Amino acid sequence: MTANPLAPPWLEAPADSNALADGVWSANARRASGGELEVAGVPASALTAEFGSPLYVLDEADARARAARIRTSFETAFAAIGATVTVYYAGKAFLSAEVARWMDEEGLAIDVASGGELALALAAGIAPSRLGLHGNNKSLDELDRAVAAGVGAVVLDSAIEIERVADAARRHGVVQRVRLRVNTGVHAHTHEYLATAREDQKFGVPLGEVAGHVARIRSLESLEFLGLHSHIGSQIFDVSGFVEAIGRLLAVHAMLLEGGPVPELNIGGGFGIAYTSVDRVTPIELMAEQLAEAVAREAERNGVAVPNIAIEPGRAVIGPAGLTLYTVGTIKDVEVATAFGSAVRRYVSVDGGMSDNVRPALYGADYSTRIAGRASDAEPVLVRIAGKHCESGDIVVHADYLPGDVAPGDLLAVAATGAYCWSLASNYNYLVRPPVVAVANGAARVIVRGETEADLLARDTGLNPTASGEGATR
Amino acid sequence: MTANPLAPPWLEAPADSNALADGVWSANARRASGGELEVAGVPASALTAEFGSPLYVLDEADARARAARIRTSFETAFAAIGATVTVYYAGKAFLSAEVARWMDEEGLAIDVASGGELALALAAGIAPSRLGLHGNNKSLDELDRAVAAGVGAVVLDSAIEIERVADAARRHGVVQRVRLRVNTGVHAHTHEYLATAREDQKFGVPLGEVAGHVARIRSLESLEFLGLHSHIGSQIFDVSGFVEAIGRLLAVHAMLLEGGPVPELNIGGGFGIAYTSVDRVTPIELMAEQLAEAVAREAERNGVAVPNIAIEPGRAVIGPAGLTLYTVGTIKDVEVATAFGSAVRRYVSVDGGMSDNVRPALYGADYSTRIAGRASDAEPVLVRIAGKHCESGDIVVHADYLPGDVAPGDLLAVAATGAYCWSLASNYNYLVRPPVVAVANGAARVIVRGETEADLLARDTGLNPTASGEGATR
Ligand SMILES: Cc1ncc(COP(=O)(O)O)c(C=O)c1O
Ligand SMILES: Cc1ncc(COP(=O)(O)O)c(C=O)c1O
Repeated sequence: MTANPLAPPWLEAPADSNALADGVWSANARRASGGELEVAGVPASALTAEFGSPLYVLDEADARARAARIRTSFETAFAAIGATVTVYYAGKAFLSAEVARWMDEEGLAIDVASGGELALALAAGIAPSRLGLHGNNKSLDELDRAVAAGVGAVVLDSAIEIERVADAARRHGVVQRVRLRVNTGVHAHTHEYLATAREDQKFGVPLGEVAGHVARIRSLESLEFLGLHSHIGSQIFDVSGFVEAIGRLLAVHAMLLEGGPVPELNIGGGFGIAYTSVDRVTPIELMAEQLAEAVAREAERNGVAVPNIAIEPGRAVIGPAGLTLYTVGTIKDVEVATAFGSAVRRYVSVDGGMSDNVRPALYGADYSTRIAGRASDAEPVLVRIAGKHCESGDIVVHADYLPGDVAPGDLLAVAATGAYCWSLASNYNYLVRPPVVAVANGAARVIVRGETEADLLARDTGLNPTASGEGATR
Repeated sequence: MTANPLAPPWLEAPADSNALADGVWSANARRASGGELEVAGVPASALTAEFGSPLYVLDEADARARAARIRTSFETAFAAIGATVTVYYAGKAFLSAEVARWMDEEGLAIDVASGGELALALAAGIAPSRLGLHGNNKSLDELDRAVAAGVGAVVLDSAIEIERVADAARRHGVVQRVRLRVNTGVHAHTHEYLATAREDQKFGVPLGEVAGHVARIRSLESLEFLGLHSHIGSQIFDVSGFVEAIGRLLAVHAMLLEGGPVPELNIGGGFGIAYTSVDRVTPIELMAEQLAEAVAREAERNGVAVPNIAIEPGRAVIGPAGLTLYTVGTIKDVEVATAFGSAVRRYVSVDGGMSDNVRPALYGADYSTRIAGRASDAEPVLVRIAGKHCESGDIVVHADYLPGDVAPGDLLAVAATGAYCWSLASNYNYLVRPPVVAVANGAARVIVRGETEADLLARDTGLNPTASGEGATR
């Protein structure tokens, strides 16, 4: 078929718009013999019949396999240079009790970014020593709870936090292990990286101030210094930004070794995934080897031992293991003027939108979609998947091709929605947040219940006067 | 003082960074004699002491006054040309039972954009006849509930919806009043507008197809045609986009009159507000007069009677009546390279962020901030207010000046957060959504209870097995 001139240049017109592009869809998503999409043996239509639409679906075996594969790749690559690896799952991508337990069972620690994430992980039964706490502005209460719980590490983000954590540890009579977050000036995008003296953002301390802060940490008996932390960005396909950051970090790391032990180095998360068939993901084994090589080289250059390593992937673990099912409600062909006459963009509107996936609106993120309920021989047409919110920026998939007979009532699947969709979901326009189901071995179960309209109205004291502490007046 | 080179060109370095810029802050926000910010007589520190931080604050009298002023301005301007006006409050901006009742008491109807907003408005006791239902993809269930409830009007968005609403009305034995949403091709931004044959977006039907759709509507006994609907955009300061749209709409409106009555014309919402001191808002009286003039002129040009008018402001009613209070946690000076050497940006991190106000991240929206707990003589410094989320785009105020002695523990107020902040709020990083309090006459009361950590964990079936329908398996 010929491409629609409204399609973005990267989007190829497919021969078959039923095909599930390799690496974009979860490992156990496939077309059943009848043509319907199934996940781990459960047909899409059975999922929505039982749990409703829209629906977040997690392919449990795939999430576990990705967690295990990342851990093994890094362990193998770093064992070869004599270092151990701790893999923290970055809970901000998606956190529920079940998912926390999957990660724990696959040998991952968990990085929590707030008191709420900490509470969830503890309630799920994760050992506090397996948790790391992040954040540029943790509250005194959050720090106190984390230290009291015995979290494995707190990533310190500023001078004032050194004192706050030391105080909390002193109060609780413990020694708290801490990392120090560094603003290395390296920021990685998908295909390039930018390096400056210091990034114009809120996280970490500049390289030049590290020595002073570490001296202070070491002078405090209630703190134990683990090493430096750096996170250079998200959705990274190329190792060069990491390599640049590792070079900068190891120079400082080496200097710090003159004053005491520096057992490890945390190089953060950000490993990219495929949202569309044109995203070329570096295999994680290769990424791990290249990073180990860089660490070994920089350690040697600086004349120091190779440190143990920690990483914090979120998206690469849970993103591709998720998909969202929607039902088509309305379809509209919109004629749009182009430089070569006019062309038609087909708007396919579904029963969710920016409330369950804000990433297209927030970051201009691209996604892939397929008809889930059936396969079709109809000629592919360019579509835009829109949501049902009262806002023209409410787009779920900017551009993809679907069979031209896509119709109201069709089930659609959107791939790779496991990370940063549910965790960023809102109730915009009083839409309820969909349930999350985990599917494995032909069985599906709810891991986070969906909201009801009653949930949405429950906190409104104009309807439920007892919802608040009695509408206090002063 | 001299400007910081990192400040955006539009931002003036103020002589006094305590001053509350005219029109940016709610009408009853002022500095008390001791220097503290108070809203309707209640000091900021008393609000956070009682209700916590962060806190959404609505100045009730200001919201009501803005609603009344918009209604009166339009009624007056259109009475002069022989037309009535229905003002719908666009609930998507912010909707709670209390606010719905304020609007009702001030003589506004309410525009709801989903079944959830409809449920809220009905539960608040608003007469169904005073509600209009919007949406590009209303579900069959939403349409059924709206028709059954007796909503005053349904805005039809597509051909298929004509049939769906007609069916629902037939089933319920009623005649449903409907408008038809038109894609006029006019899109208004703040300072300019763009006009094409048709906008590349999901809403409405093109002008050229209106006659056919209206003929179909008129042929259905369960529908009564009210007129056309158009919404051209948001945060509009200049009347020219509306004028262009009115010209296009009235030409079609006149043609439709040949086939039957067309009692009214709905020109939508989108009236702009001041987020910063450089936003020059057109007084609503002038806007109303210019619109009435345009309607009268176009009616005359087309040789038809002036139609009655409906408008749908959201932001202009509730936006400036709201502010958010935050507490400062950490402060960091970041040295940033510029063309003329380096300059320092002071990052002031607060206890909320993109979870309670996603507009800076989503739209690059600008906001204004002041120290709320006190006034200060300290020299103003350029600040960026960042949130506490694990994301560098988590910014609350890109740039403003605050007294240079701003310190951890200070209360900050961010102005004009009444619209599209609470309604778009998320639980990103497991942060709870803050309560909303209404303040009037020296008294404050909760109108939406804040969330608790227990609320966040309640739907997790890994913690509460009974949260779902028993984790059904298939
Ligand atoms: C400090 C830190 N670590 C880890 C991550 C996880 O990133 P990703 O999900 O891209 O792997 C983030 C994401 O924002 C982060 O800020
Ligand atoms: C159809 C419609 N009407 C009214 C509004 C309200 O706009 P505003 O809050 O800018 O006045 C919107 C906003 O998106 C809208 O889509």
